[in-house]
Amino acid sequence: MPNGRGRVTLQIIADHLSVSTATVSLALRGSPLVAEATRLRVQQIAREMGYSYNRSAASLRTDRTNILGVGFHDITNPYFAELLAAIEETATAHGRSILLGTYAESLERQDRVLSTLKEYRPDGMIICAAGGSTPEAFDHLIAAGVPLVQLSREIIGLDLDFVGSDDRQGTVLAVEHLIALGHRRIAFLSESQSISTGRNRYAGYCGTLARHDMPLDPAIVYSAYGTRENGLKGIQAVLDVDDPPTAAVCFNDLTAFGAMMGLRHRGLEAGVDFSLIGCDDVQEAAQWYPALTTIKNFQAEMGHKSAEFLIKRIAEPDAPTRRLLLTPELVLRATTAPPRR
Amino acid sequence: MPNGRGRVTLQIIADHLSVSTATVSLALRGSPLVAEATRLRVQQIAREMGYSYNRSAASLRTDRTNILGVGFHDITNPYFAELLAAIEETATAHGRSILLGTYAESLERQDRVLSTLKEYRPDGMIICAAGGSTPEAFDHLIAAGVPLVQLSREIIGLDLDFVGSDDRQGTVLAVEHLIALGHRRIAFLSESQSISTGRNRYAGYCGTLARHDMPLDPAIVYSAYGTRENGLKGIQAVLDVDDPPTAAVCFNDLTAFGAMMGLRHRGLEAGVDFSLIGCDDVQEAAQWYPALTTIKNFQAEMGHKSAEFLIKRIAEPDAPTRRLLLTPELVLRATTAPPRR
Repeated sequence: MPNGRGRVTLQIIADHLSVSTATVSLALRGSPLVAEATRLRVQQIAREMGYSYNRSAASLRTDRTNILGVGFHDITNPYFAELLAAIEETATAHGRSILLGTYAESLERQDRVLSTLKEYRPDGMIICAAGGSTPEAFDHLIAAGVPLVQLSREIIGLDLDFVGSDDRQGTVLAVEHLIALGHRRIAFLSESQSISTGRNRYAGYCGTLARHDMPLDPAIVYSAYGTRENGLKGIQAVLDVDDPPTAAVCFNDLTAFGAMMGLRHRGLEAGVDFSLIGCDDVQEAAQWYPALTTIKNFQAEMGHKSAEFLIKRIAEPDAPTRRLLLTPELVLRATTAPPRR
Repeated sequence: MPNGRGRVTLQIIADHLSVSTATVSLALRGSPLVAEATRLRVQQIAREMGYSYNRSAASLRTDRTNILGVGFHDITNPYFAELLAAIEETATAHGRSILLGTYAESLERQDRVLSTLKEYRPDGMIICAAGGSTPEAFDHLIAAGVPLVQLSREIIGLDLDFVGSDDRQGTVLAVEHLIALGHRRIAFLSESQSISTGRNRYAGYCGTLARHDMPLDPAIVYSAYGTRENGLKGIQAVLDVDDPPTAAVCFNDLTAFGAMMGLRHRGLEAGVDFSLIGCDDVQEAAQWYPALTTIKNFQAEMGHKSAEFLIKRIAEPDAPTRRLLLTPELVLRATTAPPRR
């Protein structure tokens, strides 16, 4: 048995069996042009020798690598982990594998990661851009003809396939629910203008307040990235203002989880003393106690769809671009209630 | 500008500039053999035309793909997400990218995923095997000479590099801490024999009870995979026995998070009415309220080291195998206290 890498070639198998390399090649592909006995013998020997189909060589012949590149901000955030798991599932079902790059909201790191991914000649890429990205950051991919799909976050000015959620509508549902319960002072936690999800979710908040003639009070809007830690800080900040809110809409579930911790630090309980609504409905949201009322954004479907969009785009590079906005739903659980007093 | 994939070749750039393909090739590699003006001109045109270095072609020349395959159970589990993020960080620092496959504890899916990853000719692979895996599942990779590193979970009988945690020792620390606080009825939640981490963590529990002449009571050992949901169910199951425990050691943090929810369902509070210890110290553990007392398993270091081990193994395929067991530490937070009464 050979010990090193890539040493078992068609030639070696052919020599070993005293047949032609063409016969070995056909046999390994299960061609009926080769007698069954020979075919089985070739396949058995190839397996014993540790022969592996060489995708690098095959991809030069077919101009396909069957790799889908995925560029994400941070996979330790469960929202992105759920998207990635769904993309991988669909990719696998279509015989593709995922090449992963992450950049932690750093534009400079995103540049490097996307360039590196490109060098592997993926058949296409799914990108959730770092905050603050401009269309120019993707010019080199577009110029190279790499099929691209934007996921969740949308860069204005890029004419690319996009799969995301109707984020503005999600927050409208959240604020309407709180107003219907009787809340009049509603905070927004983890406001961020650097990503489209941040802008759209916040716009839904502002618009709904305006429609109900409720003032927008910057003192109860906490600006920060959507992390647990910022939820913890944010809730304390808005509770410290003179006329504190009785409820808060959070940019995402992570912020809401942090805010629930922050409430408990103050001896307050979500759904009793204060109302909280998250956004995304990550798996964890249903398992909290009290379970989190939140906006369901269908990460699994979003991930599946983005991979399907990409596979379609690879097959039809010149088709018109498509834009899919999933419609979010309010999931009522236990963290919202009428205001106390 | 060309619209399709892979159409811009050295030849096209060479024709466009009326130079040789050798000049273009050298210029793109920044060779001093090409005059600076030409070099800059070639690089600019290549960029404008969307030329991308072709790793498929390069990998046939060098027998390196610079891809590291990673086979994991489930990346929506934060323990694995943290390991993966660290692997990706180290891989990127060494000019490698990550090809990802997941198999959700399914042996059949693991077989398919590992075979597929192999076809991309990764320079090596990091594997955290599905529960119940036998050494034979990896024979085809070993026969093909793929450098392998086992991470976190160890398959008995495989002579491969391994990076993990001294899991037995972690649980010893946990149980000793609870005994020192005065607990005499200590449950174990999410016991599982199908993975090495499960066997070793449980062995640490059994061994420490024995050393203190405390009986092992199967009624307060809850057997299940380590999920939030099983923690929620497990705590309720052990609280329902005639002589309920006053504390529990959990297989992992996810189980402990679920158990904290379960306690709250019963109107009990971790760290006041009942003591809980997790295992892993995922980022979330510190952010809970009460913050989780747990065993720190250093996922970031484990992930970094596994990638370093693999890169070393690729460079020296015949070096003796190495085994690194990180030493876990008890992190005291707020979920443990002396028993009530």
